[in-house]
Amino acid sequence: MHEQYMERFFSGDPLAASRLMSIVERGAEEGEAVLDAIFPKVGRAYRIGVTGLTGAGKSSLINKLSCSYRREVERVGVVAVDPTSPFSGGALLGDRIRMSDARGDAGIFIRSVASRGSETGLSACANELADVLDAFGSDVIFLETIGVGQLEYKVRFSVHTTLVVLVPEAGDDIQSLKSGLMEIGDVFIVNKADRAHGDRYADDLRSMLELRRPAQGWRPLVVPTVAVKGGGIPELVDAIGRHKSFLERNGGIEQKRIEALRNRIAMVAEEKLKDLFWNDRRIAQALDALFPEVLNGAKSPYQAARELVAALSIGKQGG
Amino acid sequence: MHEQYMERFFSGDPLAASRLMSIVERGAEEGEAVLDAIFPKVGRAYRIGVTGLTGAGKSSLINKLSCSYRREVERVGVVAVDPTSPFSGGALLGDRIRMSDARGDAGIFIRSVASRGSETGLSACANELADVLDAFGSDVIFLETIGVGQLEYKVRFSVHTTLVVLVPEAGDDIQSLKSGLMEIGDVFIVNKADRAHGDRYADDLRSMLELRRPAQGWRPLVVPTVAVKGGGIPELVDAIGRHKSFLERNGGIEQKRIEALRNRIAMVAEEKLKDLFWNDRRIAQALDALFPEVLNGAKSPYQAARELVAALSIGKQGG
Repeated sequence: MHEQYMERFFSGDPLAASRLMSIVERGAEEGEAVLDAIFPKVGRAYRIGVTGLTGAGKSSLINKLSCSYRREVERVGVVAVDPTSPFSGGALLGDRIRMSDARGDAGIFIRSVASRGSETGLSACANELADVLDAFGSDVIFLETIGVGQLEYKVRFSVHTTLVVLVPEAGDDIQSLKSGLMEIGDVFIVNKADRAHGDRYADDLRSMLELRRPAQGWRPLVVPTVAVKGGGIPELVDAIGRHKSFLERNGGIEQKRIEALRNRIAMVAEEKLKDLFWNDRRIAQALDALFPEVLNGAKSPYQAARELVAALSIGKQGG
Repeated sequence: MHEQYMERFFSGDPLAASRLMSIVERGAEEGEAVLDAIFPKVGRAYRIGVTGLTGAGKSSLINKLSCSYRREVERVGVVAVDPTSPFSGGALLGDRIRMSDARGDAGIFIRSVASRGSETGLSACANELADVLDAFGSDVIFLETIGVGQLEYKVRFSVHTTLVVLVPEAGDDIQSLKSGLMEIGDVFIVNKADRAHGDRYADDLRSMLELRRPAQGWRPLVVPTVAVKGGGIPELVDAIGRHKSFLERNGGIEQKRIEALRNRIAMVAEEKLKDLFWNDRRIAQALDALFPEVLNGAKSPYQAARELVAALSIGKQGG
């Protein structure tokens, strides 16, 4: 089914790209066949992760950044992950509107990720769609994620630069709430910096970051922006460029490629392993036999799980 | 190591409970041995999930609710999951302060979950700590989670009643942003209901919920609260009680127990399966051989993953 789109895809037809992304999103063998087919063309794009809580202004920033990059490159891709909708998996109406500048530009390809039923599925899907946009010839790709949970941690393996978007708030929030985000940012954006205490927030953030030991020798930058008005965007583009140069000088680009590939293999292998497990006749039989014992309290769920895995008799030849 | 605490735990020593929870949190065989040992005592507590975005007031609500329940029951447990800190895994300072009423009561046991490195790990850990509090004799247990991602979906399997905490905002937010939360709530709390448009927000929410087909015959309730002042707490306790009665009348309690046990077995089995996989000598060898081929583009990560899983030679006897 996907074969009909491949030639048009490689010759730059956006409709073919869109169809292939839908196939990838559905997953299964067909989606994997697409990813196999495009893999030789993947790896040229510079990938930028954009993370931050709802309302921080991620979409506005990506909108302005995309338009800014488009003055210099031919194609920009955007993959927006929306985990606030684990069930319906729809894109945010608000984001659609805020992205309207970028939407009017045929050189900017925007795609929202619908949930595939798990967070691992979401991050895998986001990375896979980014691969399609990469093979399609995108020079720069943005991956937008909401700044909570472990999603960022997984997406981080696949991006070159991570932008963390914050908004000026009460000072103690910096210390407590955002501590998870502190560790992953290469560039910190203080958006809505024209708010009261915007300057002080940026200063506090800089002081905090200075107390940390720079990871792999990179000291994160802080850039104040007012995204809706385009304020601070040139400075932000410059900061991203500085991080990119840093990576290039230090072998960081190749190291990120290795990490991303290792991570991808591991994620895909684990999914396949689970599929094999739950589709194995022996497991189904063992579970049917064990479950009543757990229900009546004779066995704990942990005992049952141990016996279930043992029913596969892996490891006999290994270890 | 845990054996020394078991007797004191079952005789009601909170220090022993705390030690056992630390062992469970560390996981591994020792943690599992604790969970095996307490399993016969697990299942008496009524579990309430509390979910909502940062700043919605979940901690204040749990604080007031705990104190309210404590007038009628002997022991209340609280497990707070904090996925905003995937790396440091610490509890929020702010939450600690907001929970201070409850903290002064020896009948209320509060525990924050530190991250175990993945979202699956987090939700598993939260459920396991709830099990310890359950076996310790808690009558009611609150599980607090942040309202994004798939965490709620997983925690949901283990709770009887899910409270979704919202805050009055611009009307369109209800439709877009919260659509993932719409499906999981048994009771919706409009907290900070004394804000402008608080009444209208609650009305809009009710109208929206009325358009949905009630899941398993339960139509979600909407309760306005002003948690910091204790406003609406008796009404909320009443709403939770009504959902509990509904479950009792319809066999929902037993059905939830079955779902929770099935889910637990599956999660534990998948973790064990992955451990077996990555510790298998054949997998390590296969990965060493395959990875250079992926790096030089001769094989895609998907091909590599397929070959990796095939190296285990599972499924030969199954299928």
